[in-house]
Amino acid sequence: VASPTGMDRLSLNTATTKALTLAEALRVAADAGLTQVGLWRDRVEEVGLDRAVELVAESGLGVTTLCRGGFLTAADPAGQAAALADNRTAIEQAAALGAPELVLVVGGLPDGDRDLAAARARVADRLVDLVPFAREHGVRLALEPLHPMYVADRAVLSTLGQSLDLAAPYAPAEVGVCVDTFHVFWDPQLPEQVARAGREQRIAAYQVCDFNLPIAADALLSRGMMGDGVVDFATVSRLVAATGYDGPVEVEIFNADIWAAPAEQVVATMKQRFADLVLPALEQPGSDGS
Amino acid sequence: VASPTGMDRLSLNTATTKALTLAEALRVAADAGLTQVGLWRDRVEEVGLDRAVELVAESGLGVTTLCRGGFLTAADPAGQAAALADNRTAIEQAAALGAPELVLVVGGLPDGDRDLAAARARVADRLVDLVPFAREHGVRLALEPLHPMYVADRAVLSTLGQSLDLAAPYAPAEVGVCVDTFHVFWDPQLPEQVARAGREQRIAAYQVCDFNLPIAADALLSRGMMGDGVVDFATVSRLVAATGYDGPVEVEIFNADIWAAPAEQVVATMKQRFADLVLPALEQPGSDGS
Repeated sequence: VASPTGMDRLSLNTATTKALTLAEALRVAADAGLTQVGLWRDRVEEVGLDRAVELVAESGLGVTTLCRGGFLTAADPAGQAAALADNRTAIEQAAALGAPELVLVVGGLPDGDRDLAAARARVADRLVDLVPFAREHGVRLALEPLHPMYVADRAVLSTLGQSLDLAAPYAPAEVGVCVDTFHVFWDPQLPEQVARAGREQRIAAYQVCDFNLPIAADALLSRGMMGDGVVDFATVSRLVAATGYDGPVEVEIFNADIWAAPAEQVVATMKQRFADLVLPALEQPGSDGS
Repeated sequence: VASPTGMDRLSLNTATTKALTLAEALRVAADAGLTQVGLWRDRVEEVGLDRAVELVAESGLGVTTLCRGGFLTAADPAGQAAALADNRTAIEQAAALGAPELVLVVGGLPDGDRDLAAARARVADRLVDLVPFAREHGVRLALEPLHPMYVADRAVLSTLGQSLDLAAPYAPAEVGVCVDTFHVFWDPQLPEQVARAGREQRIAAYQVCDFNLPIAADALLSRGMMGDGVVDFATVSRLVAATGYDGPVEVEIFNADIWAAPAEQVVATMKQRFADLVLPALEQPGSDGS
């Protein structure tokens, strides 16, 4: 089958409509004419995997990613075993749901620990454990670098270049990277690292959302609707498009105001902003994205 | 004269004692047995430059840096002219005060502008304008990369590597870089970029303060006393020491609780934390800093 084009590349990540159940989110997405969704595990697990698979099948929507696995930085054997068990579950869920990509937020520093280099090494070690299991299930692990403001409490993986280094021992079909505008827009190495990600066939997901200022009191909730913050979507999207990436574009926004707004309205705004700010650059990468 | 050693390398930046006048800050520093201070321009300008020079001379303290110039990203001619005038004033102040280094916080995006690449190019252009003036005054411009969470509103310079690239056209005595633990500790390229900064003789200042979590409601105030946050001071300090850097170590903390506490107590804590967490690593760089 051909890849979706135009507006059909847009995928609603259920984190954007956090107040909705899985069934409600699928209905809102389908009613808005979307063809794809990205799923968070919380919405899947609250109905159970079997029922989630049924709901997705009934919706007719494709699943672009499952979010999220990861949290692989535990230093103690029990913590590491728990993380591996949880990630194996996530891989099985992704496979059952038809999600080709499992997004990994790799985790921060253990409590009281300040050794970033050691935590980063443990992430590499856990990939050794997980990649064969993911491969058997036909699921790619998508490493997501997070904005450096989350380095200590959420993801010791901070840049696209670092993520590509971590993916390097594996085949592109086994380990990819997630390019999320919020997390990477600031990076002075973005042009060369996006180009490298494309050249190495590692772009597993492209997620768009804005970086709002001032930073929210809960820093996790500083993500914004495209156009509400400081991200230049044309620039980043042209870089991604110039690699030949023709996959889905997910909108994943953690934002208290957006969660409180009517979901139909949020999705309508999302479609409009995608059409205005993202899609033109995706379809006309131009010369500065090479 | 020989460079200060041991505790004499510690320098109190007056931003840490924001509630004090210049005279008060100098007295607190001297009473605590410190030999050096870093000065913010607000405290200098409120008494006037001539009086500030007198006060510093009377205190017997050395001046390690003047903070700060910069804000060089204006896109309009009037904004650029104003920025150049302000930075020339800062250079003159630094020279008069005997501060060998003027720290530059380069500025964020103009209002409504999202073009980071263009803003970064304008910083390079303004350095062309400023470096000859700074050279004539015997003041080095110290480019300070800021944490990427400030990229849009405070400094489009986000990494040490990017700062060194920006400094490269100039002699090491003309343009250096400021290594501030808060801003750089997360960087996966820190070991090689600190080593490069040393090799290129660009380390103009080493500033220590912690990265507190959760991020403060005003994100600028998330800086913390060493030991209160997530920074591994031993690791960063060993990297800096391994370059041969033997200059001052400034403590510059923006933090509402610290500003509200008695300054004598803050300085006593600062000395103790420096002695416990920073100085041992500075004096024994060890093998992982090469």
